[in-house]
Amino acid sequence: MAFDLKQAMADNADAVEAVLDELLAPGNGPEHRVMDAMRYSALGGGKRIRPFLVTACASLFSVDRRSALRAAAAVEMVHCYSLVHDDLPAMDDDDLRRGRPTCHIEYDEATAILAGDALLTKAFEVLAEPETHQDARVRSDLVLALAKASGHAGMVGGQMLDLVAEDHDLDMPEITRLQRMKTGELIAVSCDAGAILGKASEHARIQLHAYAHDIGLAFQIADDLLDVEGDEEAVGKKTGKDEAAGKATFVSLLGVERAREQAKMLSAQAQEHLESFGEAAEPLRHLAHFIVNRSS
Amino acid sequence: MAFDLKQAMADNADAVEAVLDELLAPGNGPEHRVMDAMRYSALGGGKRIRPFLVTACASLFSVDRRSALRAAAAVEMVHCYSLVHDDLPAMDDDDLRRGRPTCHIEYDEATAILAGDALLTKAFEVLAEPETHQDARVRSDLVLALAKASGHAGMVGGQMLDLVAEDHDLDMPEITRLQRMKTGELIAVSCDAGAILGKASEHARIQLHAYAHDIGLAFQIADDLLDVEGDEEAVGKKTGKDEAAGKATFVSLLGVERAREQAKMLSAQAQEHLESFGEAAEPLRHLAHFIVNRSS
Repeated sequence: MAFDLKQAMADNADAVEAVLDELLAPGNGPEHRVMDAMRYSALGGGKRIRPFLVTACASLFSVDRRSALRAAAAVEMVHCYSLVHDDLPAMDDDDLRRGRPTCHIEYDEATAILAGDALLTKAFEVLAEPETHQDARVRSDLVLALAKASGHAGMVGGQMLDLVAEDHDLDMPEITRLQRMKTGELIAVSCDAGAILGKASEHARIQLHAYAHDIGLAFQIADDLLDVEGDEEAVGKKTGKDEAAGKATFVSLLGVERAREQAKMLSAQAQEHLESFGEAAEPLRHLAHFIVNRSS
Repeated sequence: MAFDLKQAMADNADAVEAVLDELLAPGNGPEHRVMDAMRYSALGGGKRIRPFLVTACASLFSVDRRSALRAAAAVEMVHCYSLVHDDLPAMDDDDLRRGRPTCHIEYDEATAILAGDALLTKAFEVLAEPETHQDARVRSDLVLALAKASGHAGMVGGQMLDLVAEDHDLDMPEITRLQRMKTGELIAVSCDAGAILGKASEHARIQLHAYAHDIGLAFQIADDLLDVEGDEEAVGKKTGKDEAAGKATFVSLLGVERAREQAKMLSAQAQEHLESFGEAAEPLRHLAHFIVNRSS
């Protein structure tokens, strides 16, 4: 029977949702507002692509499912925190996300800042807990990889670049670097987390990293295409924003057709990096295909 | 010769400053703005009380100085990130900190949000790096302790409580809980980090935790007293804010005299918890005394 990516992603999203729901247990004290906002921002939405990458890569090395899901939940917490902070008025000033009011609209700005901070912190707490992996070296390596990918030299640096770039036009090398930092590093560390959990060989880690690098860029190009061509309701957030902001994107630099070709080329290249994993990497191949053909 | 706390704190602050300067190396790319803001917020200021606690507790167990200073720098990064975010317009809206413009005034709000995020992330990166300790279990335990102390059930939760409390008057149990979360947990984890690095016995950890708990509360009461009685220039930030905001504090609940007595009682009690450490704990005893007698 052919692999059903849609079903596999839905099943994985359900499993990650359950783990997130457990890790982000509702609070009791009068400060429960911050946990409410964390749950609002992390539960009940999203395609959960990064968690899927974590578990799909982990399964290449027969990692215990519970370990993989906890690491997946941690990566997703970092992704969700970044959305909460990016949506703030001082940043991208968005009021719609996944078809719902953004965190600072539903709560308030202060709560959204704190909820983001606490989600980021919780991600590292989860990774460092013995329940995530019995080997402390694995836990420590997970923390290190996630911190590097999401900090000043990774995701946060990418967001800073994005803000700085509003003042001048980016060329292809610049925009490629920006997107690698802003979205690519977290996608790469999703794959890396699976490999770390599985104590993968250096060769396997390099292959997965190359795969992640390619799909990360393909994902971003597809995102830019959706911003131009997508249906607002299906996408779940405002479209046409990049053009309205006069922002350089892969699409504004390459045009729609060449951007689409570029995304497809990257997707094909990503799949080549999976060769040595054989049949077991089918979910990752299907994901590479899906990423450039999605409508939301 | 009597122990000179002032000199010891200054020496330690210099050593921590050097490690922070090294760990927060200036960036190159156009995104260097976020590292600039991180350095602005973490370098060149503060009494560095938390780093002093880390190194003083670590030295009880003969921890390698380099390890202790790296952990101290990580704790200080978390403290500094919390100040950057707390100062934001949506939070406490402060424009003066340590006698200088706050981060969002010197840079802008978006940069301040990102710099805080990146400082928090960097703290975990530093703790997880093998250079901090050769034993991965120690590194993982440091991450876990710092995350718990600074997240939704610790420092961030305390800040949320503080914001929620603006709507109603707090009583003593409530304000004690608020302050334990908001400032006490990070002070406690400073001591705990030294004990974790030194693979201290359960008994030693409990004693240090009790010490930290007491000085944490004493520190906060002293802070409230400074807000009422302190000299703005010496304190380095606006005073009289609590009263102006109609905010319940230890001083507003107890009055100046009883608050001062309470702080001194806590300081004495803190020192009792150090009995089993003998001579080696002299710096911690002096610190307990200093905390309630400082003028800034």
